[in-house]
Amino acid sequence: MFRAYDKEGDISYALGAFPTVELIKKRPEDIVAIALHSKFRMTDETASILDGIKDKVITSDRDVERVARKGNTFMVGAFRKRFRAFGRETHVALVRPSDAGNLGTIMRTMLGFGIRNLAVIGEAADVYDPRTVRASMGAIFSLNIALFGDWNEYAAAHTENKLLFMLDARSRSLSPEIRQASPFAAVFGNEGAGLPPELAECGTPVIIRHSKDIDSLNLPQAVAIGLYELTKPSFANG
Amino acid sequence: MFRAYDKEGDISYALGAFPTVELIKKRPEDIVAIALHSKFRMTDETASILDGIKDKVITSDRDVERVARKGNTFMVGAFRKRFRAFGRETHVALVRPSDAGNLGTIMRTMLGFGIRNLAVIGEAADVYDPRTVRASMGAIFSLNIALFGDWNEYAAAHTENKLLFMLDARSRSLSPEIRQASPFAAVFGNEGAGLPPELAECGTPVIIRHSKDIDSLNLPQAVAIGLYELTKPSFANG
Repeated sequence: MFRAYDKEGDISYALGAFPTVELIKKRPEDIVAIALHSKFRMTDETASILDGIKDKVITSDRDVERVARKGNTFMVGAFRKRFRAFGRETHVALVRPSDAGNLGTIMRTMLGFGIRNLAVIGEAADVYDPRTVRASMGAIFSLNIALFGDWNEYAAAHTENKLLFMLDARSRSLSPEIRQASPFAAVFGNEGAGLPPELAECGTPVIIRHSKDIDSLNLPQAVAIGLYELTKPSFANG
Repeated sequence: MFRAYDKEGDISYALGAFPTVELIKKRPEDIVAIALHSKFRMTDETASILDGIKDKVITSDRDVERVARKGNTFMVGAFRKRFRAFGRETHVALVRPSDAGNLGTIMRTMLGFGIRNLAVIGEAADVYDPRTVRASMGAIFSLNIALFGDWNEYAAAHTENKLLFMLDARSRSLSPEIRQASPFAAVFGNEGAGLPPELAECGTPVIIRHSKDIDSLNLPQAVAIGLYELTKPSFANG
């Protein structure tokens, strides 16, 4: 079952101890197998975590190497991909995100700000690419992820108040005043193209003001800033 | 002059048209040469930009390929690395940053929020690694970068009010209230270790509050959030 990752398949991989431990803790029901390399250094903590799923653990250098490719990965978790529709809940929506690493980074930031629902809309990077799983540092196992073919399909399913992060200067500035009551959706466009201007009518267009010396903030930075501002009241007292 | 990048050398490279054009616009005095691949697609705009430095432009597939390695880079700029001490000015200080890509992303975010001075302290990733230059999307050519061997050397040179981004829960929460009058320094620690707790006495310890589901925000995300909040009054009206 450990073979080169196939985007079309049902199985993906957590590469390395950190994301694999998150997989075991958060999504044990989706584990297919855990492969350990003979160079894996077992700690008491890892041993006790693995003890609960003993019959799924194998030691096989070849299986680890076939999936991980990089020389310093000694633990790999194979798991079933899971998509899960969510109801009327606060979420992040990404329109045509194109970079697997960015997707993972964004998932981790979402978890950091307590948002556990992610909608991915249109042609997009593979949310279960092992690079995404790795970049998320396991956060992916704490999220509900739903895919939508296009904006209309998404908008039909989700009528939450939408904050549309756009570069249009007529947008409202990101600030405490634009916070919405839950549930709301924070919507971000593609790395290169941003959100199409015509979406401005579908909610409240918001802009993160910055200097004219750059065209736009990088997507993961824009998401981080947006979620920080929008969720601040939830975390103000630690 | 186009050869595999050497960290110890005086020359680095801008890989690709976007960062190379920034090099030409912002640091023409530091250009050693610009190499074009025969597959480079010249636009009128690029032609006019290159016209000003004609005698430094060569067409050489081999030179481009020797430096760029990736197949889709058709323009490379070789430039002299430049470090430049700055005076009592608002800046970002990074203590032992370890990832070249993160450094570049942070440089771009700094430029986005109008902070053009960067102090890099202690053993750190190479600020002029071509991966840093690329990740900065050329923002590196708009910054003053100063290196310091350790914290004491930095602190002796820079007495600006310091906001120390730490994970210590006793820190003050990032919020509009902790903004400092210019000039100030926003100080961030290493990706893995954060800032050493004993630095808390050297300024105002600040924490970006987030959920307990992650250990910490990624460094480039933390910097983006910090700079957004600290510089907001400068950009509030676009």
